[in-house]
Amino acid sequence: MAEPNDPRVVRTRTDVAKAALDILLSEGWTGLTHGRVAKHSGYSRATIYTHWPTQMDLARDAFAAYEEMPHFLPTGDLRADLTGEVQSFVDAMVNYHLDRGLSMLAEKAQTSAEVSEIRDRFVAAGEGPMRQTLDAVEKPEFREAATLMLCGMVTHSVLMHGRAPDSSVLSSAVDLVISGAKLES
Amino acid sequence: MAEPNDPRVVRTRTDVAKAALDILLSEGWTGLTHGRVAKHSGYSRATIYTHWPTQMDLARDAFAAYEEMPHFLPTGDLRADLTGEVQSFVDAMVNYHLDRGLSMLAEKAQTSAEVSEIRDRFVAAGEGPMRQTLDAVEKPEFREAATLMLCGMVTHSVLMHGRAPDSSVLSSAVDLVISGAKLES
Repeated sequence: MAEPNDPRVVRTRTDVAKAALDILLSEGWTGLTHGRVAKHSGYSRATIYTHWPTQMDLARDAFAAYEEMPHFLPTGDLRADLTGEVQSFVDAMVNYHLDRGLSMLAEKAQTSAEVSEIRDRFVAAGEGPMRQTLDAVEKPEFREAATLMLCGMVTHSVLMHGRAPDSSVLSSAVDLVISGAKLES
Repeated sequence: MAEPNDPRVVRTRTDVAKAALDILLSEGWTGLTHGRVAKHSGYSRATIYTHWPTQMDLARDAFAAYEEMPHFLPTGDLRADLTGEVQSFVDAMVNYHLDRGLSMLAEKAQTSAEVSEIRDRFVAAGEGPMRQTLDAVEKPEFREAATLMLCGMVTHSVLMHGRAPDSSVLSSAVDLVISGAKLES
């Protein structure tokens, strides 16, 4: 392929990343082969092998494509923004099979340093907006605790209980953090 | 085998469950075969097949054995008990490979109803002491939020960041919950 910003190159990358993600989420790691991605994306195996030599190259771009999931658009109101961001995390579990994606990353990262890197990057991108909103919390250890607790409530519920928390539990969690961190005047 | 409470029967169950757990944690689901468990536990394949006909029977007893992990011994002081219980959850991640166990359950429960049941039972047992300590929180939705946030902080950190939270973050989380739920006089 020519220049990396050539629209055809961008298009190919997007198509292949999306195909790789679909396959990963529906079939798991073992389904993610060059042959399956070629078939699903409509490109030749030669193209796939040339630009994504290993399975990890495919997985890396699959999860990078995944980062495009919508986040909540901040309003400036702390309670609304925390609730919105937690809710959008829950929505992504339901609408974008994020439960599948996260559990696959968590499991495989236990034994693969490459997957561990993909996971770290993906999680950092996912937590970004929550961390920005929690900039209002002054002490760094409280900010970290609040971030981990709010994201963790969703991760733990979905991966360990198999269901998202009720909206009354979500808003109680936001209340606990806001009141505990004394973020209200 | 004779009576279920016959000491030899109890001994066999314990040995086999422990062997199955060791294999699961070191080799994953594909390693958990009757042959491997027989070899590792020192019992015959016939014994294993007779009393644990399927891989799921082995997995169920492996995770039941896992529930014997130590919890924090409550003191009656809310802050000490919450901190102790969160810390013992972190310790289990490190000392009992609970990160491996939980990520395997989370991943496999996505596609297996039987594993989903094993996970639910295991998680309920693990959360028990935390829920008891949080009985002090009056409103049920706040109690649920506090439980999910404190357990979730550990699950999320270990599975999504690949490391346990610092002890300063752990105690900040407990402070946020205690102060947010107005549990101090």
